[in-house]
Amino acid sequence: MKLISGNTAKQIIKGSLLKENVEGKVAEYVAQGLTSTSLRGTDSHGIRLIHHYLAGIKSGRINPCPSYSIKKKMPTVAVLDADDTFGHAAGMEAAKLAIEMAREYGSGNVAVKNSTHFGAAAYFALEIAENDMIGTSYTHSDSLIIPTHGKQSFLGNNPVCFTAPVKGEGPFCLDMATSIITFNAVRQLQERGENAPENVGTDKNGIPTTNANEIKMLLPVGTYKGYGLSLMVEILCSMLSGMSYGPHISKMFEDLSKKRYLGHFVGAMNISAFIEIDLFKERMATMIDELRNEPRLDENQAVMVAGDPEKIRYSNRIVEGIPVTEQELKEFEKLNKNYKLGVEM
Amino acid sequence: MKLISGNTAKQIIKGSLLKENVEGKVAEYVAQGLTSTSLRGTDSHGIRLIHHYLAGIKSGRINPCPSYSIKKKMPTVAVLDADDTFGHAAGMEAAKLAIEMAREYGSGNVAVKNSTHFGAAAYFALEIAENDMIGTSYTHSDSLIIPTHGKQSFLGNNPVCFTAPVKGEGPFCLDMATSIITFNAVRQLQERGENAPENVGTDKNGIPTTNANEIKMLLPVGTYKGYGLSLMVEILCSMLSGMSYGPHISKMFEDLSKKRYLGHFVGAMNISAFIEIDLFKERMATMIDELRNEPRLDENQAVMVAGDPEKIRYSNRIVEGIPVTEQELKEFEKLNKNYKLGVEM
Repeated sequence: MKLISGNTAKQIIKGSLLKENVEGKVAEYVAQGLTSTSLRGTDSHGIRLIHHYLAGIKSGRINPCPSYSIKKKMPTVAVLDADDTFGHAAGMEAAKLAIEMAREYGSGNVAVKNSTHFGAAAYFALEIAENDMIGTSYTHSDSLIIPTHGKQSFLGNNPVCFTAPVKGEGPFCLDMATSIITFNAVRQLQERGENAPENVGTDKNGIPTTNANEIKMLLPVGTYKGYGLSLMVEILCSMLSGMSYGPHISKMFEDLSKKRYLGHFVGAMNISAFIEIDLFKERMATMIDELRNEPRLDENQAVMVAGDPEKIRYSNRIVEGIPVTEQELKEFEKLNKNYKLGVEM
Repeated sequence: MKLISGNTAKQIIKGSLLKENVEGKVAEYVAQGLTSTSLRGTDSHGIRLIHHYLAGIKSGRINPCPSYSIKKKMPTVAVLDADDTFGHAAGMEAAKLAIEMAREYGSGNVAVKNSTHFGAAAYFALEIAENDMIGTSYTHSDSLIIPTHGKQSFLGNNPVCFTAPVKGEGPFCLDMATSIITFNAVRQLQERGENAPENVGTDKNGIPTTNANEIKMLLPVGTYKGYGLSLMVEILCSMLSGMSYGPHISKMFEDLSKKRYLGHFVGAMNISAFIEIDLFKERMATMIDELRNEPRLDENQAVMVAGDPEKIRYSNRIVEGIPVTEQELKEFEKLNKNYKLGVEM
């Protein structure tokens, strides 16, 4: 394993995007989103995606210079048309809009339409929590998980993300896919020649298998509960925005000239409209402290709260750098060289 | 098994409450909530709870004639003080308040404090969906589930409920506990002398066991994901309302003279602020139809969407009646006789 500093990665990503004529603010959001995601340890949705995105600009899928349009029929609801630009930028514009509405009216809800892949949901909901609000963010995605009692995939492993501020540390952050494991985890098992756990994935006929090489579809977490949550996310992202759903969404890694027409949903609630913000954050810290000090089943495994593993990884990686393969490091060096960015590596 | 008609059950429940001097609107909400819940097949949270509630009035836990107070610092956020009355009534007042705010501003969010057990979360979120809005409802509850890597219970199996209207039929309704199975299911296994599935519950030391008689605590659905969702619900219900959390909440079935000081959260989003309501409902119906027609893994088990089993049970029970044990039927007859209600059974 090699290491790349977050700052270096961010500079190369932003520089490459700018050289492809991506609008400055859009490039900043993408670079910031990918880098912070890798620093938090969610490598599947982090800096490695830059190559896929650059290809998406060249093929015409992603619009580098969007003209957003916002429709607002009521004070706390907006529909943001992302004009096919980066989901990172559209999601962050939506988050800022939701925060603005919540500041004045107590809550803000934004459906995003005509968007593309938005990376890790946490990026947007964390921005909201940093503004002392409850944040939520959701996106739908390619058809991948099988509905309970079905045998072919329908919905994506649509993530649920919920954040809340905490006194003295970063926000509480639940960011979970609605499948048991991700397809990236399946690929890792394939590479290592290992078997998958039982009942996490199925073969092409919908039959559960532990043979990682045969896994083509995923099973929802907690069977019908994860499937239900995935459908909840689909309703928020497809039905409110008017976008396609499940199997009708164009695939992320097929035909890069096809637009994605993705939908997201971002929500903010102003905590101080409910209760004194300091009291809220103090009580959050107390409850979380209590949980972390709960007796352990195994002395070596701490009780944590959602977002703790990411906080630990972040504090390591901000110092040590982001672990990448030799190949990945070379690709970053190539971007730096080919785009003549001159970033010190 | 005996049967009692929904209408009879409702009349006996409401009549009994009125005889205990419960305020008329409160009695109506409780009777309606319990009966509709039983008709939908959620027996654990249905009509059988009336005896527990009557005891709660007599012991002073539940206030039969509340003076609600509502604090509203911003147009789409309210905190409703339930004055220790029935959660059913407080939750329904909150739902109506959320709907009212969403009608004018696009969304409404109500934290309820100083409440008691509110029964099934679906009762409130369904009311919101019947008003052509997206509904959410949450409650916290007695400490029962073990945080991941812990060995003693902390949070309750805090339910997540989400509803949305559908053209031509009742709303989509996801109403899920954040444990894998409920404690009621454990009790049923005990009565039948059956074993529990693996990894759904633990003994008093936090060690997973399949011996239903030894199960004292429950495990969260999807391990850390269900635990994270349960914590999300706790934040919405305890932290926003200022109520206690997890192990500090007084127990439902212990010392009935103790007040519960429970918190709930109810939210409404006005769909027509995002998109034409008819289009939304039509597309919901199309997507749901598509899902129900998905190829089946087992020809005898249909692919459904959240709320379908409840819809099927409702249409049966509204005709056939609610199945009750002989003992349960006798207890209803006793209420009818002792309170001199004169309901025809």
